[in-house]
Amino acid sequence: MATRPTELEIFWISGSPYSWRVLLALEIKQLKYRSHLLEASKEEHKKPEFLALNPRGKAPVLKDGDTVLYESLAIMAYLDRQYSQPQLFGQTAEETGRVWRQISEYSSYLDGPLNRVVLPIYFDKVADKKEDIRAAAKSVHTELARWEEGIGDAPWLCGISISAADVAVYPFLKSLCRAASKETAAPLQLGFLPFESRYPRLAAWMGRLERLPGYERTYPPHWRT
Amino acid sequence: MATRPTELEIFWISGSPYSWRVLLALEIKQLKYRSHLLEASKEEHKKPEFLALNPRGKAPVLKDGDTVLYESLAIMAYLDRQYSQPQLFGQTAEETGRVWRQISEYSSYLDGPLNRVVLPIYFDKVADKKEDIRAAAKSVHTELARWEEGIGDAPWLCGISISAADVAVYPFLKSLCRAASKETAAPLQLGFLPFESRYPRLAAWMGRLERLPGYERTYPPHWRT
Repeated sequence: MATRPTELEIFWISGSPYSWRVLLALEIKQLKYRSHLLEASKEEHKKPEFLALNPRGKAPVLKDGDTVLYESLAIMAYLDRQYSQPQLFGQTAEETGRVWRQISEYSSYLDGPLNRVVLPIYFDKVADKKEDIRAAAKSVHTELARWEEGIGDAPWLCGISISAADVAVYPFLKSLCRAASKETAAPLQLGFLPFESRYPRLAAWMGRLERLPGYERTYPPHWRT
Repeated sequence: MATRPTELEIFWISGSPYSWRVLLALEIKQLKYRSHLLEASKEEHKKPEFLALNPRGKAPVLKDGDTVLYESLAIMAYLDRQYSQPQLFGQTAEETGRVWRQISEYSSYLDGPLNRVVLPIYFDKVADKKEDIRAAAKSVHTELARWEEGIGDAPWLCGISISAADVAVYPFLKSLCRAASKETAAPLQLGFLPFESRYPRLAAWMGRLERLPGYERTYPPHWRT
């Protein structure tokens, strides 16, 4: 096989869990990449040169030579097929099924209510959306209790190896913890924090992911300030 | 490799687009399977013997020997890895990325508004939800126009070969057409029908899928009556 003549390029937005998924996958696979951080506040993802890469104007976008790809899960599946070590979507059919099952369960049951909690907190709509945030938080708790039980004593969501499920879900739970810690969220008493007392296994799992080499490079820069 | 000693079993619900995806994948791969049609009206998917297979009480569920799997996309990914001909998730990394991109685009942008149109029509809530159905129908049209352009002159959503994207998206569009043809939907003038004049390329694509061998075995039985 010829050496890859091109450099991987990733276009991303700080704090976007979708972007974060792809950065984590790149780091776990120890791939070199050129990073293009788009400034969402300057609408850089709506400019013509970016729309030429993704007509939907959404990050992340991956460029690998002539291949341009968007949608975070699709990018992860592409990377796993092209740069297979370590394999994030399973070594066997059973493992592949299990990984996609976890990802689908996140998308089908947790993503919706989680965003109904997180987004109004970030976008300063707590006063308007109080009731809906509380209702959604209840669904998030029901779901997290299931995940807390599901992970059991395993180090990773799908067992002894890190997988795309860990990568796909982690940024959203991290974002939930951050939103819950905002001052404006305190009066809502959402009950997520301290996360390590409420969901100790999931908290330990998040810590495990945060100790991976390269993790720091993926951390949203604007969260540090 | 040893011959498969067991029989594939699929538990499904008539008219559920999620179930339909898996039946289509099984037929396209020409796999033999034992079909367990659950009667949703009798809550068969909430009975203990089914909850033992999927604690969420949702169809479809696949059983393949000791492997039990739920979530339609996960089942499709499993089947593709275990029974690879024809490959539905691409032969190359580029193709894999493209297929998952289309599936993700369906889930991210079309699934939500489509269900806001279809479900109230099926569940007799048209009077209550009129405004929301109209608003959602507008988003569905915007998205379908993009898909109509995207397919171009290709026979299938991702090019010259049928893929998991076709299988994942078709049942939802078929369900939309059926809902739009209901008498209760007529006064809403949603503008989806006749589908072949409004979206001729997508209609031709649907016809192509409907002429596949085995398609008739996947057609929701209660839609015939």
